[in-house]
Amino acid sequence: MRHALALAARGRGAVEPNPMVGAVVLDPTGKPVGEGWHQKFGGPHAEVFALQAAGARARGGTLLVTLEPCCHHGKTPPCTDAVLRAGVARVVAAMADPFPRVAGGGLALLRAAGVDVQVGLCEADARALNAPYLKLLSTGRPWVHAKWAMTLDGKLAARTGDSKWISGAESRRRVHELRGRLDAILVGRGTVVADDPLLTARPAGVRVPARVVLTASGELPAACQLRATAREAPVLVYTANPGKLGGWAADGAEVVGFGELTLDAVLADLGRRRFTNVLLEGGAGLLGAARDADAIDEFHVFIAPKVVGGSAALTPVGGTGAARMAEALTLEGVTFEPSGADVYVHGFAPGRVVV
Amino acid sequence: MRHALALAARGRGAVEPNPMVGAVVLDPTGKPVGEGWHQKFGGPHAEVFALQAAGARARGGTLLVTLEPCCHHGKTPPCTDAVLRAGVARVVAAMADPFPRVAGGGLALLRAAGVDVQVGLCEADARALNAPYLKLLSTGRPWVHAKWAMTLDGKLAARTGDSKWISGAESRRRVHELRGRLDAILVGRGTVVADDPLLTARPAGVRVPARVVLTASGELPAACQLRATAREAPVLVYTANPGKLGGWAADGAEVVGFGELTLDAVLADLGRRRFTNVLLEGGAGLLGAARDADAIDEFHVFIAPKVVGGSAALTPVGGTGAARMAEALTLEGVTFEPSGADVYVHGFAPGRVVV
Repeated sequence: MRHALALAARGRGAVEPNPMVGAVVLDPTGKPVGEGWHQKFGGPHAEVFALQAAGARARGGTLLVTLEPCCHHGKTPPCTDAVLRAGVARVVAAMADPFPRVAGGGLALLRAAGVDVQVGLCEADARALNAPYLKLLSTGRPWVHAKWAMTLDGKLAARTGDSKWISGAESRRRVHELRGRLDAILVGRGTVVADDPLLTARPAGVRVPARVVLTASGELPAACQLRATAREAPVLVYTANPGKLGGWAADGAEVVGFGELTLDAVLADLGRRRFTNVLLEGGAGLLGAARDADAIDEFHVFIAPKVVGGSAALTPVGGTGAARMAEALTLEGVTFEPSGADVYVHGFAPGRVVV
Repeated sequence: MRHALALAARGRGAVEPNPMVGAVVLDPTGKPVGEGWHQKFGGPHAEVFALQAAGARARGGTLLVTLEPCCHHGKTPPCTDAVLRAGVARVVAAMADPFPRVAGGGLALLRAAGVDVQVGLCEADARALNAPYLKLLSTGRPWVHAKWAMTLDGKLAARTGDSKWISGAESRRRVHELRGRLDAILVGRGTVVADDPLLTARPAGVRVPARVVLTASGELPAACQLRATAREAPVLVYTANPGKLGGWAADGAEVVGFGELTLDAVLADLGRRRFTNVLLEGGAGLLGAARDADAIDEFHVFIAPKVVGGSAALTPVGGTGAARMAEALTLEGVTFEPSGADVYVHGFAPGRVVV
């Protein structure tokens, strides 16, 4: 099952809003005879690849799969058909699929057909792997990543706002790699004003993230890279004042108005678009509002060994903040690793994954 | 010589304001027959220990030593006497000793006596090891360490000022260990007001650091731990208004007045006391002034995997700050290592040591 989970992870970025799934087929003697993973959205599922590879050797054998096989006609035929046709005697799934058109139905169908079905092997790992998929299904909101780069003295920029560059080339490469597997990159108005970012993945990744700006007031620079490239990659602007953004709409951006602009309304709208993973890239105001709302699931922080100083320099996470240090979010599953001259810190908000 | 440097480092914290020195004696066949290091201020020098251990086997052999042997009567007799008495044929020193009463004289004396003398093996490492000693000799100022603990979002405290605790027990243990080998711990007035710190090493280390407060205005809390314990461990208060601090003086603190309070004046006074290593522990104002003056030599930063948020929360290094990110201090010789759940980042200001 560990190998099946590793296979599943190969689909990261390419399969969403589907879950990542991996599968291994064992012959009746327990020898691995086929493996596969869901490679891209709309393509065949993991079980199909694994059973095809196994061929007749699957008969009487075992299918190990990281998620319950589907039993409905979606973009592909039901996997349960393929499983029964292959004649496996036993199916071991890491977890049931909460997707409403499956939701245990696949496992029930297999059991009813006489297959020995077990569920729950490595379930915590399977849930961690597909935490974004599971969150979108259960809450209608995408999994929220937050990324920032800061100096060793906790600054997002020098006192003048200059921030080029905090982190090194390797850290910036990692950020572009992250962008290239996510559905959207979100920034606040201040970041557009201060940095005029392009927010694309360079080089391009497996998906093209939508570039999303939040501006309650509707104020944005008239000329900037995002607006100038709105026909090349999607730009979405969330605002409480859509009337001010006619020019952006005319240039190809999608302007979405809410009576009141809240982060949750934005996330709910992104969830309706079946965006599975979104990334908050700043600035301090947006990240602060997200932290205050406990809306961030996964943190990616790059720390450069530089000391810039300045009591007027911005720090990465603004907002109201916790009143006591004991009330700070204490991340879980934290890893530190070198990233060029920087250190990359990765972790999850409390309770998001079992670690 | 690498082994001699490692031996030397065992004296760290116990020998200052003397340099750390290590020595290894090889017999005429090149076999190590004695080693030693300067163990404590006022005690025998490294060469003496090593030559004693070697005894008659030193005759015709080689003395490897990390610093030029002394040739003056200080707290102990000249090491050059011991070297000549032992009859070694060759002395290899990593570097000459710039101490005015030595300054090449030891090596010259040995050469004049017919000993084969070489200087410069592993010199960069020897200079790095004794960088604080060398700085004090050449500038009259102590080596300045800066330490801070911050959250993953760069905060020194929550928005209310509450900072207990940012870092974990292991990081606090390391800070106490650091305190216990240094000559003084410096804080600004704000830190005394906000945290009422004791600033002692707990458990005690090899030396008792003086606890130093900078307050230009002379304002300090009337009741606080530092004042209450001023007779138990030294307390030094630097101020431009000594008249306001009569109570502190009466309670055992040493109050030093300057017409204008500058960090450099404080460091010069600490240097006159032959303090070799001092530690800036905060707050943001003192660390900012020190960074603005490029007065910090060595950085110790503990980063806790916590996100506290808050645009009003203090960051570790205030002051004016660099105007451009490209003008930030980029640390050298940087290491990252886990410290409990935290990460400990250690490095040097540019140009302080050859790395």
